[in-house]
Amino acid sequence: MASNPKTLDDLFLDTLKDIYYAEKQILKALPKMAKTATSPELKQAFEKHRDETETQVDRLADVFEMIGKAPRGKTCDAILGIIEEAKSIMEEFEGSPVLDAGLLASAQAVEHYEISRYGTLKAWAQQLGLDNAVKLLDQTLAEEVNTDVTLSKLGESKVNKQAQAKAA
Amino acid sequence: MASNPKTLDDLFLDTLKDIYYAEKQILKALPKMAKTATSPELKQAFEKHRDETETQVDRLADVFEMIGKAPRGKTCDAILGIIEEAKSIMEEFEGSPVLDAGLLASAQAVEHYEISRYGTLKAWAQQLGLDNAVKLLDQTLAEEVNTDVTLSKLGESKVNKQAQAKAA
Repeated sequence: MASNPKTLDDLFLDTLKDIYYAEKQILKALPKMAKTATSPELKQAFEKHRDETETQVDRLADVFEMIGKAPRGKTCDAILGIIEEAKSIMEEFEGSPVLDAGLLASAQAVEHYEISRYGTLKAWAQQLGLDNAVKLLDQTLAEEVNTDVTLSKLGESKVNKQAQAKAA
Repeated sequence: MASNPKTLDDLFLDTLKDIYYAEKQILKALPKMAKTATSPELKQAFEKHRDETETQVDRLADVFEMIGKAPRGKTCDAILGIIEEAKSIMEEFEGSPVLDAGLLASAQAVEHYEISRYGTLKAWAQQLGLDNAVKLLDQTLAEEVNTDVTLSKLGESKVNKQAQAKAA
């Protein structure tokens, strides 16, 4: 096996490009999800997260700058697959009383992808001594975790109950 | 918009098929990841999770039985995308001292997808009053969370440090 000189800096940059691309895809998907949702609370949660995502993209641009690179995305098959599934749910359950429950689940799959990537990037930034990047990545990570918790609560307190009540 | 008679039972079954397919893909991917990993601890973590995944597939089959359905998968674009990214990392960082760090990150993306799906299925099973299914789904959810925590600790205590030390 040939020696490969790639370092943790390369891996960090590679994953930064991956999540930068993913966030931009999410930014495109969220308005469609907000429009499709029927529950006002779910619509609002998607709209709020869309605004947060804009800030998160800006933070990523700052992290690129901190390591002396121009912000650039790299095709992220994972987020494309996750969004593709969200689209299938929207089509398959359009007009059904359980559409919101399906949309909420899709959004949580998106959040968990982001939680895993920001968790990884934060750990690598710590290892690389990029303290200012750690701060920014941690802010976004906290927002993603918070969004996931909000969605879980909204599911359990309202959306899943409504899904079953309306379908009864 | 035409009324769509699909119910929470349909959404539950749809997502059960999604994760059943995903688990089978993960079962195929883990031995390759274990073989590629250079750290004995990471190899061991992947092998342990492979064994757990077999039990998790069996539990899913039990949940299918509880709702009177035959276990069947449905193509899950999300896991295909996540595994595709893991393969790219394995190729791009083959022979590099940071390969293990990349593999560990890929495995955490897989875990987080599973955490989101089992969390959703558990919430829906609760709503549907499928108490025995809730128990099984919760067991698997706890294992996935535990695997993710184990991987985070292994990353911070060893793999990320080694990645940087070897590359220096």
